[in-house]
Amino acid sequence: MYQIIGTWKMSLDGIREAAELLGKGGCAGDAAEHAIVRVEDNPGYTSVGYGGLPDRDGHVMTDCAFMDGSRLRAGAAMSVENVANPIRLARKLCGRDTNWLLAGRGAEQAAVAFGLPMKDMRTEASMKKWQAERANIPERLTAYTGHDTVCVLALDDQGGMVAGTSTSGLFLKEPGRVGDSPVIGSGFYCDARFGAAAATGLGEDIMRGCLSYEIVSLMRRGASPTEACGEALRFLSSRKVELGEDEGSISVIALNPRGETGAATTLEIFPFAVGGPQGAGLRAVGKDAPRPRQVTEAEMEEQP
Amino acid sequence: MYQIIGTWKMSLDGIREAAELLGKGGCAGDAAEHAIVRVEDNPGYTSVGYGGLPDRDGHVMTDCAFMDGSRLRAGAAMSVENVANPIRLARKLCGRDTNWLLAGRGAEQAAVAFGLPMKDMRTEASMKKWQAERANIPERLTAYTGHDTVCVLALDDQGGMVAGTSTSGLFLKEPGRVGDSPVIGSGFYCDARFGAAAATGLGEDIMRGCLSYEIVSLMRRGASPTEACGEALRFLSSRKVELGEDEGSISVIALNPRGETGAATTLEIFPFAVGGPQGAGLRAVGKDAPRPRQVTEAEMEEQP
Repeated sequence: MYQIIGTWKMSLDGIREAAELLGKGGCAGDAAEHAIVRVEDNPGYTSVGYGGLPDRDGHVMTDCAFMDGSRLRAGAAMSVENVANPIRLARKLCGRDTNWLLAGRGAEQAAVAFGLPMKDMRTEASMKKWQAERANIPERLTAYTGHDTVCVLALDDQGGMVAGTSTSGLFLKEPGRVGDSPVIGSGFYCDARFGAAAATGLGEDIMRGCLSYEIVSLMRRGASPTEACGEALRFLSSRKVELGEDEGSISVIALNPRGETGAATTLEIFPFAVGGPQGAGLRAVGKDAPRPRQVTEAEMEEQP
Repeated sequence: MYQIIGTWKMSLDGIREAAELLGKGGCAGDAAEHAIVRVEDNPGYTSVGYGGLPDRDGHVMTDCAFMDGSRLRAGAAMSVENVANPIRLARKLCGRDTNWLLAGRGAEQAAVAFGLPMKDMRTEASMKKWQAERANIPERLTAYTGHDTVCVLALDDQGGMVAGTSTSGLFLKEPGRVGDSPVIGSGFYCDARFGAAAATGLGEDIMRGCLSYEIVSLMRRGASPTEACGEALRFLSSRKVELGEDEGSISVIALNPRGETGAATTLEIFPFAVGGPQGAGLRAVGKDAPRPRQVTEAEMEEQP
């Protein structure tokens, strides 16, 4: 039974349309790509694609990934400039035996060779914010509040399952900085036999726990998506606290082959979108409210 | 009890010296760095550092990583040109809260800012080989035969445990191509509570199974290093065979907090170096010979 889940309120419109696509027999890859492109193209979302906030030097550098769980294959690109829809590049790279993970100029050249549209990803608004804050780069960069990487997990009626991610990364990041989003096992993982998972928040912390692989690995051992998300996050958080660090800013989503979804977060509230035969809508979990509950768009108004 | 393990015969000299360093009370990080630098500096090893074989466009682009298992922190750089000792860059990045994973020019700028020596990594021999073969790029790039990424795992007498990797990647790779070596969980992982693991071979396949994280995860659940390496590799191989693919070219090593080491491979023979209070020497495992056995340098003569 088809199902699709995406991070943050910003994914809702795309998830709704993607669920309709799946309902008409569309494949998981097309659905996930569609939902992510919708976020990438919207300059209002400053952590993804067009209008993303620049790095320290004023460049909008994106990271992306796509994984096909039926073939256990992935494609990903990192530190990429001027590619209009990074998720399309990641999907094109998925299926190759080698050279499926590309960085920087090489990834841009691949996008051009694939015939993908190129685009100046800067907007007046994003550059204005950069101009205003570039002189005061904080000692510690922090994740976005209320939104961040768009991650989408989709399952179609043929049993196809995919994961996709896209982000412009931390505002004012160091040139060349890469987060978890294009890193297999950390930002995303998908094995159609067991499930898919993806993460959003401070990538540097997510990677220390290989969170997405850990979640899929727990589903493989019998956990539900909600249980797997919660257990993986608790395991990393407890280690961080042991080391004298705070829990950080991490949220995760998961989907299993039966179409069950789940999520977990270290935040007060983490909204995500779910779509399927039941329709599409927003849900949320919180640090102290681990059971996913339905929320309305109005309730989430303060959440970008 | 201190112990150190490194991939391939090429790591033996460095592993021997690093074991002496550990025997004198040296820390795991210094030992691993020393062993890897010895391979990076040797132009005879064409898959790592100076003298590494170039990408399609004639550039020697290196990938590297360093992980400190006591703090669960990592540093890594990918698609980096002209950094004399990539492992030193990875180690410098390890410890940062953010910006610890850098790609391309940004990583090179960081190396300069750290004051690390820069160097033209091309040699006459490597460029000659590139000149000779650049016109005949094979349809399917394959891993090196008999050597590849240098991976080192070290444990010191204070319980400190680290993992380090360094490679120039596949010969004739596409510009920007990144393999498993700088990818946490795939090319390397280290949690001082449970153990460390690293992988060498075709990075694109290694990443599909997040092999290093899986191995550490199995040690966490009670497996010995040899058992964990074998089980993780079998799990990925069986999935590949199920998908109609061959087992590929993958070798892995592991180390646990008691100083026990292990390895596994899909190759006929995979030599690796081990050093500790017992001295230093070569061992090998094979696809059909999963129990590590001592081998002599002479026996391994045909292995670079």
